[in-house]
This record gives sequence, C-alpha cells and structure tokens, in this order.
Amino acid sequence: MKNKGYTQVYTGNGKGKTTAAIGISIRALGAGFKVLFVQFVKGQKYSEHKALEKFDNLTVKQFGREGFIHSKPVAEDVEQAQKGYNFVLNAFKNDNYDVVVLDEANIAVYFKLFSDDDLIKLIDAKPKNCELIITGRYATQKIIDKADLVTEMKDVKHYYTKGINARIGIEK
Amino acid sequence: MKNKGYTQVYTGNGKGKTTAAIGISIRALGAGFKVLFVQFVKGQKYSEHKALEKFDNLTVKQFGREGFIHSKPVAEDVEQAQKGYNFVLNAFKNDNYDVVVLDEANIAVYFKLFSDDDLIKLIDAKPKNCELIITGRYATQKIIDKADLVTEMKDVKHYYTKGINARIGIEK
Repeated sequence: MKNKGYTQVYTGNGKGKTTAAIGISIRALGAGFKVLFVQFVKGQKYSEHKALEKFDNLTVKQFGREGFIHSKPVAEDVEQAQKGYNFVLNAFKNDNYDVVVLDEANIAVYFKLFSDDDLIKLIDAKPKNCELIITGRYATQKIIDKADLVTEMKDVKHYYTKGINARIGIEK
Repeated sequence: MKNKGYTQVYTGNGKGKTTAAIGISIRALGAGFKVLFVQFVKGQKYSEHKALEKFDNLTVKQFGREGFIHSKPVAEDVEQAQKGYNFVLNAFKNDNYDVVVLDEANIAVYFKLFSDDDLIKLIDAKPKNCELIITGRYATQKIIDKADLVTEMKDVKHYYTKGINARIGIEK
C-alpha cells in the first residue's frame, strides 16, 4: 500500500461501528490489500465471520469469551485482551498488513483490560503505511486526540427501545 | 428471513455510512440472506465492488453518473435516480430480498432527484420481512420520523482537514 496510513476511530452509542469496520475491510480487500481484523472482548461467532472466510487476504482473530462482560471482567477477559494486544504488536513488527482493525478496543480500555496509554503505544507501533481502525463506545479523550479521524455514531432513534432482541444476520 | 424487517437510516456528516451499509450486507450474506445493494447518485466503481462480486446472493446496482453532482443535478442524474427508484419498487414487488440497501438515497432527496415523500412510499412498499438500510447525509425529518433506527455519523475529527485526498482501498 503506497498511501500513508492513518488512525481512524469509530465510537459513540449508535449502531454501525463494527459494521463500518467490516465495510472498510471489504473495500480494502477489493483493492487487493492485506487486512487483519482483530476483535477484543467478543468471542462469539457472528454471521459476518462466515462471509469473511471467503477472503484469503483477510485474517480474523477474536480475543474474548463467548459471553458478554457483565459489569466486571473476569481473569480470562484480561488474559484474552492482553494476548490480543501482544498479537497485534507482533503483527505490526513482523507482518505487513495494509489495514488493521481493532474492533472493540475502546471497550477493552473501558473495562481496564489494558489502558488507553497501552492503546496509544500500539498506535505508535503501527507501520507507517498501515491504516488502523479502532472501534467501540467510550473512546477516551486521549485516543480521540491521538487519532487522525474520529466519527461518533450517535444513537438518534433505536428500535431496541421497542423491545427487539439481536437478530441473526442483522445484529449478529 | 423470519425476522420482521425494519428501516435503518445512517446519516450525518461523518465517515462510515456507506461502509456500515456494506458491513450490514456482509453480515446478512454470512447468514445466507439475499441482499440488494443499490447506490444512488454514485456511478463510479469503488474498490468494494470488486470484493462484493464474490457473493452470489448479492446484487449490486448503481444509478448515477461517474462524476459527482456539483451544486446542481443534470437531467441524467434525475433519470438515473428515477430508474433506480422504479427498480427498487419492482424488486419489492417481485423479488424476495431479505436486506435492501439504498445507499445515498438521502442525497438523492437532497438534490431533489425524488422527494422524501417518494422515499417514504418506497419504505411503505417494502415487504414486511425485508430489512431496509438507507444512507446519506441530510436525512430529512420525515425520513427520521419514519425510520425504526437512526444513527447519525458525526464528524468529530477528520484528516481531510489536513489536506488528504480520497485514497484507493480506503475512501474509494
């Protein structure tokens, strides 16, 4: 990839953060780029994983438990997140991904699985040409200051308020 | 698709609206759903089109010119948009798509290629089980009122302000 790579952050309480990161990956794959899609906190298989398997140039890695974190993380959450953190650090050193997605990395920070200073170290460790995409609610001010592009997905209206659960193929 | 289908709107001045719609399509395709991805206003081939070709269950259609609309639409913009509008209306009647994306439909309304009342008629014409995704800046209040879910992508910080042009595989 000949472009200089930037750091993009997708945060906020609205729907569309992870799906935007998937869309960015698809666009990059269409251009022949090599993409690493890392999911923190999430360990569950989602519908998109099946579709993403089609792409040889894409590596998907999950570092989280199947269940959600309820109020407090357990030891395994911390272990998984740190394993993921080191995996990405290593990938920055040894592989030449054009685009790297850190899905829910802001949530990992929110649950103190690693700190925002750690996340900034990761941003600093990325190869110059690599485009880095960070998603998740609650991006800290330090992360916002560090990023080149920040989009806040703002929940204007949500049908969950009508009592709809996550649906296969739509929300998961 | 067994779910009841809702209408989702992604609007606002931030990056991530079209990419979120692509991500939603990928998730739906992973679940085995049939997806129609219609782009209004845009006629240019983007990197994502190449990646999306991999999916037999996905139909991508563009109804726009290659160039952007500068301040005022030309006759061909109106023709193309109305052709697209009728295509979608027809698809709602005769095909059984589980997910239909109307990318930049809000922009088509903004440029008066069709009205928001027309777009509401289209929403009303969708099969009950079909999930409808509408993207584009400047969603009108009528569209917001009509939708089940609205996310505003808010531009918090953007590297375009640093003078970066659209890059292949990242923005286009």
